[in-house]
Amino acid sequence: MPKQITSFSNPIVKQARGLRDKKHRRAEGRFLAEGLRILTEAREAGVLPEILFYSDASHPLLRQLIDKTEAAGGDAIETNADILHKISGKENPQTVLGVYRAFDTSLARIDRDAAPLWIVAQALRDPGNIGTILRTGDAVGAGGLILVDDCADPFSVEAMRASMGALFTQKVAAARWDAFVPWLRSGPGQLVGTSLKAVHDYQEPCYTRPTFILVGNEQAGLPGAYEAECDVLVKMPMLGKADSLNAAVATAVMAYEVINQWRRMT
Amino acid sequence: MPKQITSFSNPIVKQARGLRDKKHRRAEGRFLAEGLRILTEAREAGVLPEILFYSDASHPLLRQLIDKTEAAGGDAIETNADILHKISGKENPQTVLGVYRAFDTSLARIDRDAAPLWIVAQALRDPGNIGTILRTGDAVGAGGLILVDDCADPFSVEAMRASMGALFTQKVAAARWDAFVPWLRSGPGQLVGTSLKAVHDYQEPCYTRPTFILVGNEQAGLPGAYEAECDVLVKMPMLGKADSLNAAVATAVMAYEVINQWRRMT
Repeated sequence: MPKQITSFSNPIVKQARGLRDKKHRRAEGRFLAEGLRILTEAREAGVLPEILFYSDASHPLLRQLIDKTEAAGGDAIETNADILHKISGKENPQTVLGVYRAFDTSLARIDRDAAPLWIVAQALRDPGNIGTILRTGDAVGAGGLILVDDCADPFSVEAMRASMGALFTQKVAAARWDAFVPWLRSGPGQLVGTSLKAVHDYQEPCYTRPTFILVGNEQAGLPGAYEAECDVLVKMPMLGKADSLNAAVATAVMAYEVINQWRRMT
Repeated sequence: MPKQITSFSNPIVKQARGLRDKKHRRAEGRFLAEGLRILTEAREAGVLPEILFYSDASHPLLRQLIDKTEAAGGDAIETNADILHKISGKENPQTVLGVYRAFDTSLARIDRDAAPLWIVAQALRDPGNIGTILRTGDAVGAGGLILVDDCADPFSVEAMRASMGALFTQKVAAARWDAFVPWLRSGPGQLVGTSLKAVHDYQEPCYTRPTFILVGNEQAGLPGAYEAECDVLVKMPMLGKADSLNAAVATAVMAYEVINQWRRMT
């Protein structure tokens, strides 16, 4: 049976609210996701929240979420818009919010044979970029996103929002470069880096499955040693004054070129 | 000669700080830009600030900015990191910040013959998306961005940051749809809409100069009547669970397809 909470000082509310903070997410091994669309995406991917907060159970998809959450042993908690606002920090909070158990992000979880395309991001600092790349990854049929070195937290509220739920459908792993390279070289895979210093236009090479697209930090791009490890280093045409694209945009332009090549071959 | 300001209560500081707010920007006809890279981009595009705030004049590019700003009749004001923080609202403010006069955004300013590609965004709500689209526009050699209906403010600090200075190199216009369509049809131009309902893959059509890429609102996409006005309606392949891309990502994927076609023809 759904429970009710109407007090700001309820410890469950406080604990959920704490998950907006990275340290708390790490310590608790939990994260937040909001919105019926994203939570339904999660449910369809087989992922249910441990705690479901909602303020208006009239939507049939929300009824389904409540039932499935309770059937899986989770708590469905009816509350009000003020408390949802307190937890999410949003001015106009969604009517539903879930607390999820964080996924295991070890490289060992990545089965490269499961998809022809993988995205690797190095030291990405903007959680919105990470979320947007996950969303693009879903669209291009990538298997997931491997975060190399110190990246923004993919489980942050900002990344989750930008991913539009793709965090639940894409695999996410995190690793140091020194661990990623031996893992990559232990199996098939073409590492494709995007770089201002590249000689080849990004439409020149023939991309082979599985392709790993490597994008670098928003400001600094890829370190030289990382570029040297790439099997192919390519650049996009830059016809204006700027010398680079937004990291999530560059990833998408690159990823669509790869799948467009493969679409022509089939 | 540069002036000095070290007081938070100085009216020039208060006025500059007010420009973080859209109402103040409108009322004053001014906007803020921060960072040596972006302000240098502006200078190279021939745009100088009315007021330049800086905390450390040791960089030669900043010396140039100070000289040019003063030569053009603007004020260069030496201040400190605390005041730059107060104006910009950023935790780690840039060492330089400019107050610029807002540009005229009437459609009449757009010379379609000046570029083969233009981007049109309808009801985009995220200033980061607007900035990112401007940055992409620069990269693909677009002439500029036409904002249709109620869009986020391209002169906001968030849009400026995401544009990486492209706000100074791309033309920006704003118009209601009812004014945009007659303007568009008064000259040559292919209006290309991206839509989930499209029949054609985005690689099928032959894009002709000038192409106007039309992207819709982040949540709702393009209204039906707007889609009906398009000369071509296309969709990108979506291989996963999601049915759409981030608006700035979709614009970039579309724009690179257009210029890739043109690159093959030359």
